[in-house]
Amino acid sequence: MAATKIDVLGIGNAIVDVLSRSDDGFLKDNELTKGSMSLIDEAQAEELYARMGAGVEISGGSAANTIAGIASFGAKGAFIGKVRDDQLGKIFAHDIRSIGVDFTTPPAASGPQTARCLVLVTPDGERTMNTFLGASQNLCAEDINEDQVAAAQILYLEGYLWDPEQAKQAFLKAAKYAHDAERQVALTLSDAFCVDRYRDEFRNLLKRDVDILFANEAEIMSLFKVSDFEDAVKLAAEECRLAILTRSEKGCVIIKGNECHEVAAISIDEVVDTTGAGDLFAAGFLYGLTQNKTLPECGHLGALAANEVISHIGARPEISLAELISSRGL
Amino acid sequence: MAATKIDVLGIGNAIVDVLSRSDDGFLKDNELTKGSMSLIDEAQAEELYARMGAGVEISGGSAANTIAGIASFGAKGAFIGKVRDDQLGKIFAHDIRSIGVDFTTPPAASGPQTARCLVLVTPDGERTMNTFLGASQNLCAEDINEDQVAAAQILYLEGYLWDPEQAKQAFLKAAKYAHDAERQVALTLSDAFCVDRYRDEFRNLLKRDVDILFANEAEIMSLFKVSDFEDAVKLAAEECRLAILTRSEKGCVIIKGNECHEVAAISIDEVVDTTGAGDLFAAGFLYGLTQNKTLPECGHLGALAANEVISHIGARPEISLAELISSRGL
Repeated sequence: MAATKIDVLGIGNAIVDVLSRSDDGFLKDNELTKGSMSLIDEAQAEELYARMGAGVEISGGSAANTIAGIASFGAKGAFIGKVRDDQLGKIFAHDIRSIGVDFTTPPAASGPQTARCLVLVTPDGERTMNTFLGASQNLCAEDINEDQVAAAQILYLEGYLWDPEQAKQAFLKAAKYAHDAERQVALTLSDAFCVDRYRDEFRNLLKRDVDILFANEAEIMSLFKVSDFEDAVKLAAEECRLAILTRSEKGCVIIKGNECHEVAAISIDEVVDTTGAGDLFAAGFLYGLTQNKTLPECGHLGALAANEVISHIGARPEISLAELISSRGL
Repeated sequence: MAATKIDVLGIGNAIVDVLSRSDDGFLKDNELTKGSMSLIDEAQAEELYARMGAGVEISGGSAANTIAGIASFGAKGAFIGKVRDDQLGKIFAHDIRSIGVDFTTPPAASGPQTARCLVLVTPDGERTMNTFLGASQNLCAEDINEDQVAAAQILYLEGYLWDPEQAKQAFLKAAKYAHDAERQVALTLSDAFCVDRYRDEFRNLLKRDVDILFANEAEIMSLFKVSDFEDAVKLAAEECRLAILTRSEKGCVIIKGNECHEVAAISIDEVVDTTGAGDLFAAGFLYGLTQNKTLPECGHLGALAANEVISHIGARPEISLAELISSRGL
């Protein structure tokens, strides 16, 4: 096993978020399920955009946000994802590179525009996401470089990649390269509806290809088709090598065989925007793993990073997470 | 004089802001003058963008921000400005229309991209702006519709329009139409360096074409080439029909012939980002004028709107200014 040059390599949809303040009435009028992620096509995106209020454009994408968090902790991150050679694609590439992340996937010279996620943020801070995958669905197996995967201590994949067929192939190829190089493969289930679309495939994947699983309550209960969280915990202990189940303000449960740790969330005065909470939790946890922290310590780092990102609009840290943990003596 | 259908019609550069947190060291390293607006070409914009950190894209433009404020107060605003038919142009058009502003200027089908302003926000909340005018400099006299100008109670122009030669012609044509229809013409001087570039032209304009002048301390002292604010106040009383001089946390001075009113600013716990402070002050003041408020009342409405916009990132209101003043019984 060669030395690693990258702490975490993320593969995911390369998306620019369009965040707009909204209210429950707007969600209802547009038949949107609060808190979920829906896939929409370009025409639907245009229609919804025309109806929604003024927006703020900020780079997003689940795994990309996590890798931005890894970089913010001062670790080395790399990202693979597909944008188009358009203005939004340039914004995405600039933003992720500007924080020190390696991002070398060539942009598409033709085809659909860079992916956009229309995020409606309600007064309770909850976000409802509507994603036009655009160019990101053209991520393909050729975009995966074996040397880069082998150079990364952890490969981190988002469940959303399972939606575009070509991206799924890229996902599987990367997982194979990682295991060939004796690296760890982490997966986030991304969204309960995403799990619902691919339940059996994800369960097979967990047995075969995934060393570290991130899921929230809704996702893990959807995966195992159970209505009780404790039942999901038991099944995770049986079927996952390491599972980290996040429960918003109730903290997280970390399960590794017979080991089970509960880690508290960090309370916050006002939740401004939950976009990126799960992504940044994963960043903190994975950063901890690369630094050989204990599992509860990893959970606490995840809670800290999630706490920072829900205190403001946007799914990436506004402050240096390295400075944040240093100021807390971690 | 026919009835007006528009309260305020703004003409200005149609710009998308790219806001990024920065520090004094970065400004120094890049020879940027804190608090100013510098014009840069596309190559310079690319270079600076490559050096600066991750950004947030939000619609901006000085007069456009003011008109967004007018709409937020619940009054009828319209805007004339030029974007390209690109992604940023679509964002600009969406954002201003989504708040109820009439924006019908056709986008350019060729030529430079939609204008961008790279805004570096330092920890003290001060913003340093670097503008690539792009498509906005192709605003031309043909984009001015006489009927629309005649339908607006107040025509509001930004001094920045004086930079692109064609936009200047559009400015003069609009001012002529406004006076032909017995409407009022308001001007903001925009920036001390902008005033420095066109001092004599602006002074002629004040005598001939401008009914209402907005300027901050640096701008009015630059206009009259004086080093003492009180001297500038005296000259404004002589040369302007109505002048509103803003002084940041010291409030504003309103001068109309022998009348002179001082209006206090509204204190704020933390200045997050001063981008748009002057633009929103003008929005509040002009809204007051359209509602036949007294001059001190207009100044107070300006202070309220400015106070809202400096409490967050971005140059347009995040909350309804109509609700804000209603909650204060104004």
